[in-house]
Amino acid sequence: MKYSKIPVARSVVALCVAKNIKNVVISPGSRNAPLTIGFTHHDEINAYSVVDERCAAFFALGMAQQLKTPVALVCTSGSALLNYYPAIAEAYYSDIPLVVISADRPVERIDIGDGQTIRQKNVFENHILYSANLYSELVLDDEPVNPKLQQKQFEAQKHNEREVNLALNKAIEEKGPVHINVPFYEPLYDTVENIEVNPLQILPELKERTYSESQLQNYADIWNKAERKMVIVGVAQPNVVEQKYLDLLAEDPGVIVFTETTSNLDHREFFTRIDTLIGPIEKDEDREKLFQQLQPDILLTFGGMIVSKKIKSFLRNHNPKHHWHIDPKKAYNTFFCLNKHFETDVNSFFSGFLPLTGHAESDYGSFWKEIRKKRQLRHEKYMSEIPYSDLKAMQKIVPEVPENMIVHFGNSSTIRYAQLFEWHPSLKTYCNRGTSGIDGSISTAVGAAVSSTDPVLMITGDLSFFYDSNALWNNYLPSNFRIIILNNQGGGIFRILPGNKNSENFETFFETTHALNAKPICDLYGLEYSYADTEEAISENLTHFFEASERPKLLEILTPRKLNDEVLLEYFNFMKS
Amino acid sequence: MKYSKIPVARSVVALCVAKNIKNVVISPGSRNAPLTIGFTHHDEINAYSVVDERCAAFFALGMAQQLKTPVALVCTSGSALLNYYPAIAEAYYSDIPLVVISADRPVERIDIGDGQTIRQKNVFENHILYSANLYSELVLDDEPVNPKLQQKQFEAQKHNEREVNLALNKAIEEKGPVHINVPFYEPLYDTVENIEVNPLQILPELKERTYSESQLQNYADIWNKAERKMVIVGVAQPNVVEQKYLDLLAEDPGVIVFTETTSNLDHREFFTRIDTLIGPIEKDEDREKLFQQLQPDILLTFGGMIVSKKIKSFLRNHNPKHHWHIDPKKAYNTFFCLNKHFETDVNSFFSGFLPLTGHAESDYGSFWKEIRKKRQLRHEKYMSEIPYSDLKAMQKIVPEVPENMIVHFGNSSTIRYAQLFEWHPSLKTYCNRGTSGIDGSISTAVGAAVSSTDPVLMITGDLSFFYDSNALWNNYLPSNFRIIILNNQGGGIFRILPGNKNSENFETFFETTHALNAKPICDLYGLEYSYADTEEAISENLTHFFEASERPKLLEILTPRKLNDEVLLEYFNFMKS
Repeated sequence: MKYSKIPVARSVVALCVAKNIKNVVISPGSRNAPLTIGFTHHDEINAYSVVDERCAAFFALGMAQQLKTPVALVCTSGSALLNYYPAIAEAYYSDIPLVVISADRPVERIDIGDGQTIRQKNVFENHILYSANLYSELVLDDEPVNPKLQQKQFEAQKHNEREVNLALNKAIEEKGPVHINVPFYEPLYDTVENIEVNPLQILPELKERTYSESQLQNYADIWNKAERKMVIVGVAQPNVVEQKYLDLLAEDPGVIVFTETTSNLDHREFFTRIDTLIGPIEKDEDREKLFQQLQPDILLTFGGMIVSKKIKSFLRNHNPKHHWHIDPKKAYNTFFCLNKHFETDVNSFFSGFLPLTGHAESDYGSFWKEIRKKRQLRHEKYMSEIPYSDLKAMQKIVPEVPENMIVHFGNSSTIRYAQLFEWHPSLKTYCNRGTSGIDGSISTAVGAAVSSTDPVLMITGDLSFFYDSNALWNNYLPSNFRIIILNNQGGGIFRILPGNKNSENFETFFETTHALNAKPICDLYGLEYSYADTEEAISENLTHFFEASERPKLLEILTPRKLNDEVLLEYFNFMKS
Repeated sequence: MKYSKIPVARSVVALCVAKNIKNVVISPGSRNAPLTIGFTHHDEINAYSVVDERCAAFFALGMAQQLKTPVALVCTSGSALLNYYPAIAEAYYSDIPLVVISADRPVERIDIGDGQTIRQKNVFENHILYSANLYSELVLDDEPVNPKLQQKQFEAQKHNEREVNLALNKAIEEKGPVHINVPFYEPLYDTVENIEVNPLQILPELKERTYSESQLQNYADIWNKAERKMVIVGVAQPNVVEQKYLDLLAEDPGVIVFTETTSNLDHREFFTRIDTLIGPIEKDEDREKLFQQLQPDILLTFGGMIVSKKIKSFLRNHNPKHHWHIDPKKAYNTFFCLNKHFETDVNSFFSGFLPLTGHAESDYGSFWKEIRKKRQLRHEKYMSEIPYSDLKAMQKIVPEVPENMIVHFGNSSTIRYAQLFEWHPSLKTYCNRGTSGIDGSISTAVGAAVSSTDPVLMITGDLSFFYDSNALWNNYLPSNFRIIILNNQGGGIFRILPGNKNSENFETFFETTHALNAKPICDLYGLEYSYADTEEAISENLTHFFEASERPKLLEILTPRKLNDEVLLEYFNFMKS
């Protein structure tokens, strides 16, 4: 093993290893050499090299999401660090642990005109769980050692060790991004062999609450009296809830459970496609009556962000009496009526709560299941009649995705189209819904592909793909990685929104139309490329698309730009009858 | 003309126009529709559409640098905004006026789980001149109007108008980035025709000081007694100093003037290539004596960042008694001995100061000019002998660049190589030296090309090119735009720095080697591509490269990765004798 001669670099590496943070994504630089040397020469560290820091950060995010443990990022000083910010915000809102470690110049070299030097201290303040600002130390070889200087260095080192502990613990405990800023004096490249490092160790502590029966009884009483209980599951990892609790919820005739494509849980009684239920009501003459019938007494939520705008709008306008959210860390007042935050894990909550509950008499579930059945028939009829379009292409894709794959969806039209379909329950599905950006979807999927044994499929729109095409610039793409682009030659989502769609102004500044295709990007980064612009060509391509291959593959599906929005908007009209 | 129905959107547009901010770079989104509608339908606005916000911001920076007037950026809410940050930091340190206008959701929609919503307020705090956080207003159509509500809206509007004025004025007065955050309620797309907008107008005020003769006399007295006066010019726009002042400086035998490739000023007496003078001294056995002879009594600086690390290191270790910096806005203590900041424009300073000065007897200038002459002979000899390499390629390029071109250089090895050569004085030269990042060099050059009548040449390394290849994803590349890539298959700069260069670890994590070439990127974005990997091929290519063409052109020069650093490092050894 080889270590940096700079003590703080050794402590950072040793503390990451001690806390089981063993995956590190490094972007090239010189100021970060002490960290790069330390991490890349450590036997227990898996180091990855990604040049574009924006991609590197989303790559690490995709890894951390799969591994459910913090992944570290290392970059040089200056604007390099700022390129991490989009992924940091995504991690912040999606509760994904990222440890951002930036090299810096010593404080006296800031704002004096040195190259690659900015104000890194607390630079992510708005979206970070902890900012550890470490001290620089000069490494002095000369004997005799000055005792006063030695004391000062000892204290700096102890400060640094404590700060690194607290930052790493925060990432572990609260599952989010933290920032450790490490200033270094030159020389940066000196190394020592096999030096013992025993930094101060502060253990992380998971601050999860448990609720006693008496604490829960009040809520159970309210629950037991309510006839209409709605459960909504936001973004969640696979297997976060034990099946027995899902079964108990499903059995209650007064409960309906809404899940989304990104909820990663499955029960045949659950309502998996919120928009196919709510969208048609919005178009219905009797909407107010229907919405009142759907309005719950109690809304129970868990998981992260909710994709469906329609359910948010409905519940904001038809507030339940109670909104309770279960999460060890945070509860958003998404519907303006949150009145209880159970600060605990969802299984822990259900294990205490469900035994206290019984079934009130109710036709809430059966009424809406009847409507769901009708909707399904209309959906099938509509899908059988529509012309070739984004919606049609998605329909062709859904049944062809092999079981157990990890599927990453792009924002924003892609995930919205995906929400209209029933995906195979064995799929593990993800989308960057923390900030819902298009800036790092491909990189996130690549990170997932690198750290998972299951193969990964990315389904994306064209803007998200080209925006983040640097995602493919690294040496880690596994050969089973797959990308499907729904290329509608611009931002198709904007055609679905209001506004004057047939002006040049709209096409230039909203839809941002283009005539690009992904083949050159595949040539550049060595992906196998294929192309489809009819229903038949999609089917034919998909027959072989998921077969094993030497290189990762990309399928580009060209859809009719000016038809897609009509097909989608008409869908909700058609569904209502 | 068509206007947004939302008053604050109309005010923002009207105030930009009133303050002559007429170029706006817009990235697509829905929340920013009121701004996009307002700007793109205004007769006096030139609007540009760029999808990737990181590129959009550097594109705007390149425009603002040429136009010497603020350029506005408009984006939607969420992480979109964060992608501006690298360019904002560059603008902050390079004193380039950028007006960042972000759409936002109303404050009650933040941190409740809405899509594309982050904490935008003051998000660029570390690197921004002004953050204007505007109020949201509901637009109510219903009659009768409630007078209390009307009063509240009136006050919000007046607050907003004042804040927008102050932000825009700051960008104009202090030439840097400002941020205006504009929350919008829905509906976003409603428009009105020809509505009168007369927002409050606060005029910007340039706060430049003038110095009286008596204030300057003390400094002139010190100057007149000094035998060794060194002037260093950092990054500067062309024509910032009147030639008569340069002539006066050049005539003084006790003055030597150091300029850099990015200083954009020319006098045959000036020392244009700092590193060719200092680099060999560092290698000389008599370096301490030589450095003492070079050590000035007075150091006078103006302009922005200094590229040469060697001059910084020399002057930090051989402090002049006085360091005076001339700039209306700021003075960096680059050499740890700044003792006077003349807060004024350089012409204004020289017009008052130089008439008070005379020439002390001195051989300072003549001594170093003699050495410079020797160095030039060695340089020519070395260049005639070296093998094909980055240095050789740069030598071939220099004389072929047509007069009056704008040349943008990439960081970091490209600009350092460029500094070793004498470029034609008619060239206007730029490099992103505010933060010295590689993250937006190409976009900056594209922005310059869009807003200048002179053709633009970008000379860049391969990492900078691929990092920012989205720069070419827009409809504005003029056909006379040219790119030359020095492709040494990785970060060549790292080979020049210390460290173990021949390990796999070095190649993966420092040099980050790759086998990419730029042809697919040219295919994607419609550039004419050519390629050279010998001296002869470079010459042949350059014969026609700058001729008029239908499409922009890119020349990729492949150089021997493992030889480049040896050729460069040996250069300084060879130069000393």
